[in-house]
Amino acid sequence: MRVLSQNRSEQVREAMVAAGADALTITHLPNILYLSGFSGSNAVLLVLGDLMHLFTDGRYTIQAHEEAPQARVHIVRTPLAQACGEFLRSRSPRKRWRVAFEAASLNVAEWGRLKKAAGPRIEWKATTDLVEGVREVKTADELDVMRCSAKLASEVVAEASDFVRPGVTELEVAAEIDYRLRRKGASGPSFETIVASGPRSALPHARPTEKRLQKNELVVLDLGAILRHYCSDLTRMIFLGRAPARIRRWYKAVEQAQEAAHDALRAGVTAGSVDRAARRLLNQHGLGSYFVHGTGHGLGIEIHERPRVGRSQKQEIRAGNVVTLEPGIYVEGVGGIRLEDEVAVHADRTEVLTTAPRGLLEL
Amino acid sequence: MRVLSQNRSEQVREAMVAAGADALTITHLPNILYLSGFSGSNAVLLVLGDLMHLFTDGRYTIQAHEEAPQARVHIVRTPLAQACGEFLRSRSPRKRWRVAFEAASLNVAEWGRLKKAAGPRIEWKATTDLVEGVREVKTADELDVMRCSAKLASEVVAEASDFVRPGVTELEVAAEIDYRLRRKGASGPSFETIVASGPRSALPHARPTEKRLQKNELVVLDLGAILRHYCSDLTRMIFLGRAPARIRRWYKAVEQAQEAAHDALRAGVTAGSVDRAARRLLNQHGLGSYFVHGTGHGLGIEIHERPRVGRSQKQEIRAGNVVTLEPGIYVEGVGGIRLEDEVAVHADRTEVLTTAPRGLLEL
Repeated sequence: MRVLSQNRSEQVREAMVAAGADALTITHLPNILYLSGFSGSNAVLLVLGDLMHLFTDGRYTIQAHEEAPQARVHIVRTPLAQACGEFLRSRSPRKRWRVAFEAASLNVAEWGRLKKAAGPRIEWKATTDLVEGVREVKTADELDVMRCSAKLASEVVAEASDFVRPGVTELEVAAEIDYRLRRKGASGPSFETIVASGPRSALPHARPTEKRLQKNELVVLDLGAILRHYCSDLTRMIFLGRAPARIRRWYKAVEQAQEAAHDALRAGVTAGSVDRAARRLLNQHGLGSYFVHGTGHGLGIEIHERPRVGRSQKQEIRAGNVVTLEPGIYVEGVGGIRLEDEVAVHADRTEVLTTAPRGLLEL
Repeated sequence: MRVLSQNRSEQVREAMVAAGADALTITHLPNILYLSGFSGSNAVLLVLGDLMHLFTDGRYTIQAHEEAPQARVHIVRTPLAQACGEFLRSRSPRKRWRVAFEAASLNVAEWGRLKKAAGPRIEWKATTDLVEGVREVKTADELDVMRCSAKLASEVVAEASDFVRPGVTELEVAAEIDYRLRRKGASGPSFETIVASGPRSALPHARPTEKRLQKNELVVLDLGAILRHYCSDLTRMIFLGRAPARIRRWYKAVEQAQEAAHDALRAGVTAGSVDRAARRLLNQHGLGSYFVHGTGHGLGIEIHERPRVGRSQKQEIRAGNVVTLEPGIYVEGVGGIRLEDEVAVHADRTEVLTTAPRGLLEL
């Protein structure tokens, strides 16, 4: 998908003007990709009047022109913040000029360079989530790509019985998952694939290890794809053998918690109310204290985006949001259970993007 | 390898005191891993007196205790910068206290939170490269791991003839490389594997695409492994068929440029002199204008570390440095050639860590 930057940059300009700024320096790479189409690893984007100026280095000369045809490309040898600052100084009018910057992605050192190079005529305005606020509402084009990305990752999970079995290591399973993601067209996993077995399943963010899967163990698979720059994310549970009653009971509770969150999810509610719906259900089962993280998160170009679906989030869910719903319980020394799907919110309904079967898989 | 943090943290404490600071807040995750052993994605480390305090969130309760047994672990619900600031406020003496922070990894928003929570009795000192300056000299243990990481990636490159052939896509080759890295024990590639063919080889940081390899094309493979948290990095060139005279000439020039850089590399010289040795050689061949990036970079826990081997780098090469030497030429519309190896610098010699055959491979 060629990133369609025209409408997006208009929305960002509106948000910039609403924030009282005459120009905007963008340093968060996913925001630069979103607005300009440029996917390199070193860039500053300046939104100024009707133009976007893209600052990058000589490694990206060809790529920048190819990917960001609508931006004016500046290939520079100095630190990008300095080059952007010098450019601003050369363009700034005699009177004071208000330039917004991204406080959550500009580090203190770059910030110093930018200010110094831009000179005293500029009044800086710290902003957060200005572009992210636009990104959080996905367009029809973005939803199309996200559907494909979620489907791709779901297909790999649905093949788990081909490669998850006692005797293989967590790392081997992760390697197989990533390979299958790539073979199906992903540019890579959207985060480091999680394969955790036995008591290690109680680590919500476990990295796969040399540990071998064993009979009568829980295995958690948490993975996603990056497809045409868009992330997917889902989690499924496997039991290697016939699951004991306690595990089934726990699984059922997590499943119900996810359903409760899904029932609560719609345009107009707060993100916090969705989280609390899942939490209430797990509390009813006496498992609330084992649920140590939020219920979910938005995703898109990044694996974690707005809105965050956490207990005290007052942010309103809007049509166009795509969020994960992933309640889980983690019992140290025993194991953990998490179930995660991706749900898109439309004006009048929700749509589950992940397509893998949802039950506890016994192998 | 269990990260050996004792000696490292002593060196960092010395650097902290030399910088005139009583305490140090560390926000750069690779530095946190280096000092404490903790590998989670959300952490702040505070070096204070003889203790290290590790702030992270509830997802990492078990992992933090497991990986960082020498640190005092604080599991918090608030933003970490705020929690660290509040802790500093509770510990700060009545008189002014000097606390260093990492200006290149703390963003402006977190910086505001940290300052606000810590209160007025603290005098902040911006530092850069304080921990990085310790990290750049690898210990014998680190070199052992880096040798294994370089060997692992080299083995995959040496197998290229098994899976590089006309008709397969760049993405398929990249998927195969990543799979083989993992099967050999890597936790993943150390950066997004580069497979670029034909005119696309002229993009120094090309992402693999759906483009199929064709007969009589150049193919660049640039890849590395992460093994026990340490990165490797090498680049090899393939020609699908018999390479024409011009390509052989170019390849020879790049090879000589790499040799010139290697000859110049030793403890005590400036990084810039190593770069200039490669550049001089390419200039002699009339190819200097096609060499659009630096000659190399340090690596270790991160894929790009100090020292940078660039034209005007005055930094001194020291025993214990590990750097890449990777001159390349990029001719838009035609193709590019790069050759990259990893070299460790010892007091009295250098050691090439990458073991794959170095010639232009014709398939």
